Amino acid sequence: MTDLTDLPALSASEAAARIRTGSLGSEELVRVCLDRITAREPVVHAWAWLDPDAALAAARACDAEAPRGPLHGVPLGLKDVIDTADMPTEFGSEAFAGHLPARDAACVAALRAAGAVIMGKLVTAEFATYRPGPTANPLNPDHTPGGSSSGSAAAVADFHVPLALGTQTAGSVIRPASFCGIHGFKPTFGRYSNDGVLATAHRLDTLGSFARTVEDLLLLDAVLGDAADVPTPTPVVGLYRSEAWEEASPAMQDALEETAARLRAAGYDVIDIAAAEPFAKLAEAQAIIHKREAWLCLGEIRRTHAAKVSQLFRDFIDEGERIGAEAYAGACAVQDAGKAEEAVLFGGADVLLTPGAPGIAPEGLSATGNPRFNRAWTALGTPCLGFPGGSEAGLPLGLQFVGRSGSDRALLRQGAAMLAALA
Amino acid sequence: MTDLTDLPALSASEAAARIRTGSLGSEELVRVCLDRITAREPVVHAWAWLDPDAALAAARACDAEAPRGPLHGVPLGLKDVIDTADMPTEFGSEAFAGHLPARDAACVAALRAAGAVIMGKLVTAEFATYRPGPTANPLNPDHTPGGSSSGSAAAVADFHVPLALGTQTAGSVIRPASFCGIHGFKPTFGRYSNDGVLATAHRLDTLGSFARTVEDLLLLDAVLGDAADVPTPTPVVGLYRSEAWEEASPAMQDALEETAARLRAAGYDVIDIAAAEPFAKLAEAQAIIHKREAWLCLGEIRRTHAAKVSQLFRDFIDEGERIGAEAYAGACAVQDAGKAEEAVLFGGADVLLTPGAPGIAPEGLSATGNPRFNRAWTALGTPCLGFPGGSEAGLPLGLQFVGRSGSDRALLRQGAAMLAALA
Repeated sequence: MTDLTDLPALSASEAAARIRTGSLGSEELVRVCLDRITAREPVVHAWAWLDPDAALAAARACDAEAPRGPLHGVPLGLKDVIDTADMPTEFGSEAFAGHLPARDAACVAALRAAGAVIMGKLVTAEFATYRPGPTANPLNPDHTPGGSSSGSAAAVADFHVPLALGTQTAGSVIRPASFCGIHGFKPTFGRYSNDGVLATAHRLDTLGSFARTVEDLLLLDAVLGDAADVPTPTPVVGLYRSEAWEEASPAMQDALEETAARLRAAGYDVIDIAAAEPFAKLAEAQAIIHKREAWLCLGEIRRTHAAKVSQLFRDFIDEGERIGAEAYAGACAVQDAGKAEEAVLFGGADVLLTPGAPGIAPEGLSATGNPRFNRAWTALGTPCLGFPGGSEAGLPLGLQFVGRSGSDRALLRQGAAMLAALA
Repeated sequence: MTDLTDLPALSASEAAARIRTGSLGSEELVRVCLDRITAREPVVHAWAWLDPDAALAAARACDAEAPRGPLHGVPLGLKDVIDTADMPTEFGSEAFAGHLPARDAACVAALRAAGAVIMGKLVTAEFATYRPGPTANPLNPDHTPGGSSSGSAAAVADFHVPLALGTQTAGSVIRPASFCGIHGFKPTFGRYSNDGVLATAHRLDTLGSFARTVEDLLLLDAVLGDAADVPTPTPVVGLYRSEAWEEASPAMQDALEETAARLRAAGYDVIDIAAAEPFAKLAEAQAIIHKREAWLCLGEIRRTHAAKVSQLFRDFIDEGERIGAEAYAGACAVQDAGKAEEAVLFGGADVLLTPGAPGIAPEGLSATGNPRFNRAWTALGTPCLGFPGGSEAGLPLGLQFVGRSGSDRALLRQGAAMLAALA
């Protein structure tokens, strides 16, 4: 007889192992997740769509068959900008109420093939931009969970599901992970397929993941990216305060410095990395590219559904329309130069240590916080592993390890080792 | 009374102007296009889906209202990898027979808002890769029309519609335009939204257009990109034979040299541009990125529908699976370096003149020809304007003008001026 008490806290890796060996049924696990959701959803509001009967039926189907893959029977949630053929995909907008895509996104097909139970869809800010949904930070419901992957971060942090997918175009994976005290992973640009994911900015849109352990992020990465492992030497860590250092709160600054000191104490070689051109311009370039490409991708929606979209969204798109072709081309050139000079930025470091957000989750649910510490990495396309690195006033402070493009699995393994050393 | 004889040959710009002034009805135009299709489709096989009654109804609806935009009443076709909510989207695969997307791609929404009549869907190679559909080259049906945008090029070349959209991931816009003797335009990577377009390789996939005049490509670009014009000085033209020069047929080599000579005679400053690192490596990098990302985007389809996809497709995807993370990262680095060094490649030139394909369309319908002269530009993300520049054995030889990233409208205007000087 399984002790149900701890089941919602089970990691995906543990759950998958227990389901594989028969010591846990998927239905059992899904049922306790649903109970947890029932108890907490009135406060957290993480879910845009959830059908308990369908989730239980999917779990029973898993229990009735041999394991299909590494996520067999494991429940997870999807940001509501990821197409599902059997559940609505509403993009956080009443303009798409009840919208039912005709086919699964490529990532959803991969998850199903790996045996995952797709529980439902998680609240997103409107069209994955800035107008928040109703989700509250589960650690303090007066504070934002961050966005735009608000429901994804909150659902994982609050033990509704062990895994969730989100997207990052400015800072929408690492920032909410930081605010909710969990791990987030933004892979190298292009590593996970965007097929069937709402396009909001082609040079930036990146599918990412949320979990409570790095091991779970590795498990998901093997399904969505690839499982081939590369050599993983002990990394030289670059302490990167960035050109936005003065925008980090004193508590965030302390958390970063302390983490660096503790890594040194644990035997890691930690060196200082200075912010240099063209990297200092990447955040600004990201903001220009984001607005211009959002206008391109979402402009028709803004026009067609003008009465059903928010003023915030309309303004964002209209700003994008005003960005001229020349300013956009200049921003793209900064991005391209940054990508080509990535090795210069990293200097002698293999992994950079830098803030995941300016500080703790701001109070209020009317905004999702500042992506200032995420913009440059999204523009650069480098993999980022967000992790909790301290706290203030009972809310977490999230830091991130940033790896070189393509080093995704090495970064996750190195990150896991460093976090173990810090624990 | 309109003389119907020449209507199928009308350009989109002329048709739009005549519809706007009331001297031509959209229904009238669509009807003669349908007649042309009826007469020619048994030979050309350009269409994957066409509903004459629906097209006529859409045209009548246009005729009954005030002009909605610059394409009001103008018929066009879409490569069958572009989602339409009112027509099937089958990706050139029986695995998706009857597949009906739930919403229009962003480009389709923009076209409809501009008043266009979406006639139907055009044949694509299987999943926009390499297994050809049934389309024949309208200029000689024993020869390939090129691919993967086979139907798009053939339908425009054969006067079924004045405009069509396609996609280029290796050479799928410029090559078929070259083989069919029309104009093709691949804009700067990211200029047109890929939202709702089948993802096959995120670093490469580019929506593009086909027309019989450059003016029509400008008209379409104003709808899908933006209409804001930048200064358009008389360009310095770089004659770029490329590192693949020996792969161009003698006739293609002659056509390129002759076009350069004629531009010089017309007063243009034409300079020689040498192929330099890292640009000479771009084609190889494109091939690696393409395979690896196609595996990422289409791998689940290959697995799920193994019995319904071609051996050619399975092999392509399986090759992608075997490309290691390191080889992929190396190819991405070559691409990024090329983008960052674009100005070095262009040297003193504003526009490069280079082959659009190795030669005329090869005989036979079992393959779509070689994208060798397109790969580098797709990887670089620069805008390319394909145009007919000679002929051999009754089939056209297509050249291209390549502009700097972001110079799309300048390139189209400069191209139009140069082609006028050559005419």
